[in-house]
Amino acid sequence: MKIAILGTGAGARQHAARLSALGHQVVIGTRDPEATLARTEPDMMGTAPFAAFHATHPGLTLASFAEAAEAGELVINGIDGANAVAALAALPATALAGKVLIDYAVPYVYQQPGDAPNPWPTPWGEMPRLDPVDTDSLAEQIQRALPDTKVVKTFVTQEQETVVNPAEFGGGDHTMFLAGDHDEAKAAARELLNAYGWTDIIDLGPLAAARGLEMYAHFHTALGLALGGRFGVKIVR
Amino acid sequence: MKIAILGTGAGARQHAARLSALGHQVVIGTRDPEATLARTEPDMMGTAPFAAFHATHPGLTLASFAEAAEAGELVINGIDGANAVAALAALPATALAGKVLIDYAVPYVYQQPGDAPNPWPTPWGEMPRLDPVDTDSLAEQIQRALPDTKVVKTFVTQEQETVVNPAEFGGGDHTMFLAGDHDEAKAAARELLNAYGWTDIIDLGPLAAARGLEMYAHFHTALGLALGGRFGVKIVR
Repeated sequence: MKIAILGTGAGARQHAARLSALGHQVVIGTRDPEATLARTEPDMMGTAPFAAFHATHPGLTLASFAEAAEAGELVINGIDGANAVAALAALPATALAGKVLIDYAVPYVYQQPGDAPNPWPTPWGEMPRLDPVDTDSLAEQIQRALPDTKVVKTFVTQEQETVVNPAEFGGGDHTMFLAGDHDEAKAAARELLNAYGWTDIIDLGPLAAARGLEMYAHFHTALGLALGGRFGVKIVR
Repeated sequence: MKIAILGTGAGARQHAARLSALGHQVVIGTRDPEATLARTEPDMMGTAPFAAFHATHPGLTLASFAEAAEAGELVINGIDGANAVAALAALPATALAGKVLIDYAVPYVYQQPGDAPNPWPTPWGEMPRLDPVDTDSLAEQIQRALPDTKVVKTFVTQEQETVVNPAEFGGGDHTMFLAGDHDEAKAAARELLNAYGWTDIIDLGPLAAARGLEMYAHFHTALGLALGGRFGVKIVR
């Protein structure tokens, strides 16, 4: 299958490499492919420049957001939360109409000079805010901006390495979650998750449940800081 | 030990009954004991009137918030999130000064007529909002209102029956979490959790991490609606 991944961050790279290894044709979308390849410094999250990753994964195509989205039969959104809605809404209408869009972005807003203090220090500065939060979600904003696209939220509650290969860590006994208003989108996401190796997948119902998945981010970060190593989430029944 | 539980909801009753069975002297605090005992209808969450519970647990003392807090060597806050800060701040200064306060309330704000719609329908109406959320938490508000009290947030991420007796459900393999700025409070909460039967307890660090615990509420509710039965959370390492 032709799969487009929008975004070039650490999560996007995990999906691209794994999907390619699973035999899919992967196109990675970025705002400006030349600029992405020219970057030589790690990004704000410490992720190595994309060119180094690309050199070791020559089968992956890098293209503009529009070209990647047009090419994808299935599209995965990994554009950072602060820019996702604007970047997706700016695509040609044909690029995403009728398609399934899997969204895993967290709508982080990083503290800027002059902002009110947000007293939760982390090793990389104060904890980012979430916007939207509580009564709306990024996934719902994307769905409203793209009414002809079938949006599903998933992936967001597990570490990126675990998302693409749950069997490889902690005995493989983790739980994954889905939320969306379109059964077809949830079925497509479930198929992809099965291919990654997920066996315990819980459908949380409507896309509004993406609020809970996105708001889980602060808990996830606190756990990561406390444990200082990898972890997964299992729902015990 | 003399333990005060402030609040008469389903969670408060679970703690009261279990702590009493464990040999503690339990005083339950409520705004107006006579009114609490006079109620004959279930509350908005469907919880049976307190008098029925009290009749089957005659060893439990019901008192005013102030009397209960004064009596408790350790105090557990189960006052609903919308009223907790005001009710606690109104207590005599001696009632809580120097004590450990374990808080497990979620700062729910239920939809009122005239509010903007919050399109996440549940069987009991639209999902309540959280206030505070994201850049503050109820636990931090309580700590700021009671600077001489040692606040710790815990319990909130698991079902009430599981909190007080983790061994009794799902093989007992669940994870519990703590957050707080006072080591003494976290040690007291850990001791109580150990007595309940918890063996896997993760210290999430400062009280700011309570934001993540409180914001987990929407995810927890979505899980409950999706599964339609009991569940627990296990962090896999």
